[in-house]
Amino acid sequence: MVNIGVVGPWAAVLAGLFALAVSFLLARSVLKADTGTPRMREISDAIAEGSMEFLRVEYRVVAIFSAVLAVLFFFVGPIIEPDSPRFWRASATGFLGGASLSALAGFIGMFVSTRANVRVAQAATRGLAPALSLAVRAGAVNGFAVVGLGLLGLAGFFITWRAMGVATPDIPILLVGFAFGGSLVSLFARVGGGIFTKAADVGTDLVGKVEAGIPEDDPRNPGVIADNVGDNVGDCAGMGADLFETYAVTLIGTMLVAASETLPPEPTETNVLYPLLLGAVAVIASAVGLLFVRLPKSGSIMTALHTATLVTCALAALGFYIITIPILGLPLPYFGAAVVGLVITVFLIFTTDYYTSKHFGPVQRIAGGSTSGTATAMIEGMAVGLESVAIPVVTIVVGIVVAFALGNSGDLEHGLFGVGLAAVGMLSVTGLVVALDTFGPVTDNAGGIAEMGKMPGEVRQVTDALDAVGNTTKATTKGYAIGSAGLASLVLFADYADHVNRASDVPLTFSLQSPAVLSGLLVGAAAVFVFGALAMRAVGHAAGEVIEEVRRQFREKPGIMKGTDKPDYAGCVRIVTTRALREMIVPAAMAVALPIGVGFILGGDALGGLLIGVIVSGLVMALFMANAGGAWDNAKKYIEEGAHGGKGSDAHKAAVVGDTLGDPLKDTAGPAINPFIKAITTIAVLIAGLVAQYHWLNL
Amino acid sequence: MVNIGVVGPWAAVLAGLFALAVSFLLARSVLKADTGTPRMREISDAIAEGSMEFLRVEYRVVAIFSAVLAVLFFFVGPIIEPDSPRFWRASATGFLGGASLSALAGFIGMFVSTRANVRVAQAATRGLAPALSLAVRAGAVNGFAVVGLGLLGLAGFFITWRAMGVATPDIPILLVGFAFGGSLVSLFARVGGGIFTKAADVGTDLVGKVEAGIPEDDPRNPGVIADNVGDNVGDCAGMGADLFETYAVTLIGTMLVAASETLPPEPTETNVLYPLLLGAVAVIASAVGLLFVRLPKSGSIMTALHTATLVTCALAALGFYIITIPILGLPLPYFGAAVVGLVITVFLIFTTDYYTSKHFGPVQRIAGGSTSGTATAMIEGMAVGLESVAIPVVTIVVGIVVAFALGNSGDLEHGLFGVGLAAVGMLSVTGLVVALDTFGPVTDNAGGIAEMGKMPGEVRQVTDALDAVGNTTKATTKGYAIGSAGLASLVLFADYADHVNRASDVPLTFSLQSPAVLSGLLVGAAAVFVFGALAMRAVGHAAGEVIEEVRRQFREKPGIMKGTDKPDYAGCVRIVTTRALREMIVPAAMAVALPIGVGFILGGDALGGLLIGVIVSGLVMALFMANAGGAWDNAKKYIEEGAHGGKGSDAHKAAVVGDTLGDPLKDTAGPAINPFIKAITTIAVLIAGLVAQYHWLNL
Repeated sequence: MVNIGVVGPWAAVLAGLFALAVSFLLARSVLKADTGTPRMREISDAIAEGSMEFLRVEYRVVAIFSAVLAVLFFFVGPIIEPDSPRFWRASATGFLGGASLSALAGFIGMFVSTRANVRVAQAATRGLAPALSLAVRAGAVNGFAVVGLGLLGLAGFFITWRAMGVATPDIPILLVGFAFGGSLVSLFARVGGGIFTKAADVGTDLVGKVEAGIPEDDPRNPGVIADNVGDNVGDCAGMGADLFETYAVTLIGTMLVAASETLPPEPTETNVLYPLLLGAVAVIASAVGLLFVRLPKSGSIMTALHTATLVTCALAALGFYIITIPILGLPLPYFGAAVVGLVITVFLIFTTDYYTSKHFGPVQRIAGGSTSGTATAMIEGMAVGLESVAIPVVTIVVGIVVAFALGNSGDLEHGLFGVGLAAVGMLSVTGLVVALDTFGPVTDNAGGIAEMGKMPGEVRQVTDALDAVGNTTKATTKGYAIGSAGLASLVLFADYADHVNRASDVPLTFSLQSPAVLSGLLVGAAAVFVFGALAMRAVGHAAGEVIEEVRRQFREKPGIMKGTDKPDYAGCVRIVTTRALREMIVPAAMAVALPIGVGFILGGDALGGLLIGVIVSGLVMALFMANAGGAWDNAKKYIEEGAHGGKGSDAHKAAVVGDTLGDPLKDTAGPAINPFIKAITTIAVLIAGLVAQYHWLNL
Repeated sequence: MVNIGVVGPWAAVLAGLFALAVSFLLARSVLKADTGTPRMREISDAIAEGSMEFLRVEYRVVAIFSAVLAVLFFFVGPIIEPDSPRFWRASATGFLGGASLSALAGFIGMFVSTRANVRVAQAATRGLAPALSLAVRAGAVNGFAVVGLGLLGLAGFFITWRAMGVATPDIPILLVGFAFGGSLVSLFARVGGGIFTKAADVGTDLVGKVEAGIPEDDPRNPGVIADNVGDNVGDCAGMGADLFETYAVTLIGTMLVAASETLPPEPTETNVLYPLLLGAVAVIASAVGLLFVRLPKSGSIMTALHTATLVTCALAALGFYIITIPILGLPLPYFGAAVVGLVITVFLIFTTDYYTSKHFGPVQRIAGGSTSGTATAMIEGMAVGLESVAIPVVTIVVGIVVAFALGNSGDLEHGLFGVGLAAVGMLSVTGLVVALDTFGPVTDNAGGIAEMGKMPGEVRQVTDALDAVGNTTKATTKGYAIGSAGLASLVLFADYADHVNRASDVPLTFSLQSPAVLSGLLVGAAAVFVFGALAMRAVGHAAGEVIEEVRRQFREKPGIMKGTDKPDYAGCVRIVTTRALREMIVPAAMAVALPIGVGFILGGDALGGLLIGVIVSGLVMALFMANAGGAWDNAKKYIEEGAHGGKGSDAHKAAVVGDTLGDPLKDTAGPAINPFIKAITTIAVLIAGLVAQYHWLNL
């Protein structure tokens, strides 16, 4: 038998390097493609520059926040918790590692996608197939960078700490800092990016379309570059950072369960490293699955992407089997639990598609409701969003119950580990999902460049078709991101409970009968709402500044509208960047302060309640927001394609109103809830030991 | 020392009779007032007839539902749970009693308020003060009927069962059926009434204002009577039934805590009857408080109503002291806990006022946002609604923590009883709150009658002023209704946990670490969303039918618009009634089926999770919906009063759009969540014993 403690982490390193190699090769092939006319390059360069400007400013804020927290961890942690200096120092190091790698993944994704856009627009001159292929490859650069850096980071720290003499079961808790680093970056990326993208969109459209009467993506609009930058910072960098963190947190959370001395199964090296190896094998499955993105005869791009998803999941299941039974010789139910995660993935993606795609009843009902006016359009969209939470929640509940039952089947008593493995199974296909998501901003930008570059009509037909699919993939991958964040956080809650209990004199029960737990639950549920309010309002504020700036430029340079003067694109980008990042501080600080406040005031039981309150309420609210927004958006697009009188009809006007509310719900508030949930849960695990010892009230 | 077991219930009977006498005298004084011109009477009669038609059809549906359930309880209950035939037979009787009394309270309230409207309109010819006085008296008829019948019913059953030989501590559990009867009626009244009111409103306005270009409350609109009927069935009958049930359920829930042998304090007759006596004394406080509704020199009606609220709460506190210390000799902290409930009441009413009144920042910010267009109006309203949950939730949490701590202070260990007493304190002022709420539909109708009756401008100024305040009281009392439903349900959850545990072989822990509890929580949170979706969609459907009918009448009788032909008002009322009550079946069935399904499939732990999931998620969602809707509504009214360009400005148009979404949120989906929460919790207590013995899965 090989020494799994040595071979396991190195296998994960190899898989991580493989993913990065795939990412690199794809990036090279994308960058080699033709960049079209100088005019197109000029637009694309402006978008790339604006995106990088945003990243630069965002990373500066993140760096300051991170430096402060790292110093606190490294120097103050060991003082207030003198028994575990190693924990705090390792957490500080891991924290910086997680934050840096997440930032690096975001940089790589943005770098390529803001260069791929123009190339996809140019490839569209040769038809749908080459444009699709290029866009998918560009998306995959981001996807494989995310999982590659995630695996490499985790395995790298594992190997380093092992070399420093830490025993395998003691390592996972040291990795929580790594997860928190990813959390912090994803919180800023999701919140800041979400505010940026919607403020630029709403503000630019309002002055451009409504006041100046020029179409979307018109180069005369000073906000148009900011709008295109927004697509990248929201759906590319934001989603990438979000899933980087969910990926890391799921692996770490499940390794923590495996490493616990109080939770079954027994903490063996095999069990602890098993999640990492599941992740490693799924990377290969994703790479093969990606090869299946080929335009079928029907020409349906969605079919091509769905095929790739199903192939990836099937191959991952095969890989899970090989790892679990012949290689590691682990119980068969473990394999079953991991497959449950893959099944949840497929269910969530297809359910979200059902609720947000214009091919199905829900979106068509909103479009139908739009014919009776705004009121019915709003009511029906709200109803679709609210009801859309049911199937995903039931899917997750059934998944938890089945994974738990599998973990407890036969003579095993490993229910919780089963749930963790389901989460790992679900997250193992992160690479593919991020690829599908990043497809969205790339094709959206390609459409914008085609419009602004005044390319011929047939090119725009191709980019429009891709953009429509990109809208769907952005929506469906949101369902996955939310569901996986919820499941990952539930695993992390179990770790929190385990840790706080081991440090408590009297074991906590987390009973719903305790007023502390109830208080935590109520505060957690309300916190999600307040966080959503902050995000929504931030969009309003930042959009107001964009409106002012665009109006000012039109006023001060009348030549812009005549085409004789060039608008100051960078000025708009700068304004949204500054404002979005300023608005991001309070919500981010709330995510950090809330678990600390509740924990040290009301104690460990209340903090447990807070976590579950935030997870449960966050899961349903994020699903509602994302799906309502996606459905309203596509109802508008459905009408624009000719239904119910088409563009300019009364139905269209009603649908546009639905979209104005839906847009910030689906692109700012909803997605921002994911990192909010995960940051709070990760912090709770970090402070579990302290909370058990120090809290103000004893309820 | 007197025999409290005998004197206590009779004191409650006396207080109930006193409340009914107040209600009767007020009704007589209201009905004696002048009814104005024949034209006014004609309109009022049409509204009264339509309202009664709705009640008749609603009660027929409720009667069928109730008969089936009563038969199940009476005959099937004893078969499946053979050890407790008395429980099921008493529950069946109590159930019919609770349902009948709730229905009777609704009937009385509707009967008077649909007759008071025309009298208030006529009194307005004599100025603000007489109109205000009449409207408040009309509202108080409903308020005192609700608490009078509640106290009388509970005490009546108490005395009857005691006379039949049941010991005092064994009686409260038999009263759960009574609560469930109230639940069922309130579920139908809230859901059916909510759908009716908004469908009539949205449908009538859409065809009238938008298509035919006639103003609101124009007698040529065939839907105008249905619209006015809707105000009564929603805010008068719906709110009355809702609070009747919360009132009953809170008293019963706290008596159950007091009667439990496993929960402290010891089950003495004094402890069991104490909640009933707190309710009795608060009736007198409410009657005195009502006398303080006098127009101050400033002419501010809101000040008059706030004064009455504060006086009532202060007098209730005084009464609580006298009952607790000199009369019953109970511990001082009990008194403190009951006062906590009064403080929560005041906080909730004032907080809701802050978020939904046009005098404060939130509403003014929505109005300001409306100046930049629909997008910012929608975003800001959403943000206000989302953030408005924070203070009420924190108030409830602090209230729970303080009441629990009081219950555990000194050498007491009665934390849970403390929370129950806080709930009783909060609900003790139900009479006054229902009075303030019913003020709304009465003055709203008075305005409509003044408009349709072509009364002079100064009369309409008076009714407009009253209507504006009515809008505020309707909004603020919603905050109270939601908060009290949440607190009452938490007390009932404790009873459920106690009962299911006593019947279980292995005691349940309701731990957040259990997958069963988590599953229940997740399903409960999602259920609230799905229920909201059903309610919203029902409004859309029913409004669609109103639109068809109004259009048909305009088309087939062209004389209506010219004023030569009379529209068929009753036809519209009939259509909304039928449709609203049909749409109500599925949500109501869901409330009954959900706890039964979860309980018997996943077991007692999961059912506990479901309850808390529904309570927590329902509390925040209902607050969000009610407050967002109230804020949007008043932002529109604020602009109509002249801000930002006034009526017809672009800001006004944007605010109107916000209101179209806000209206069904605040008047249908939000309020319907209260009875949904309570019905599920009450059913859970009823089936606790069975669930402990029979369930499919063992998680």
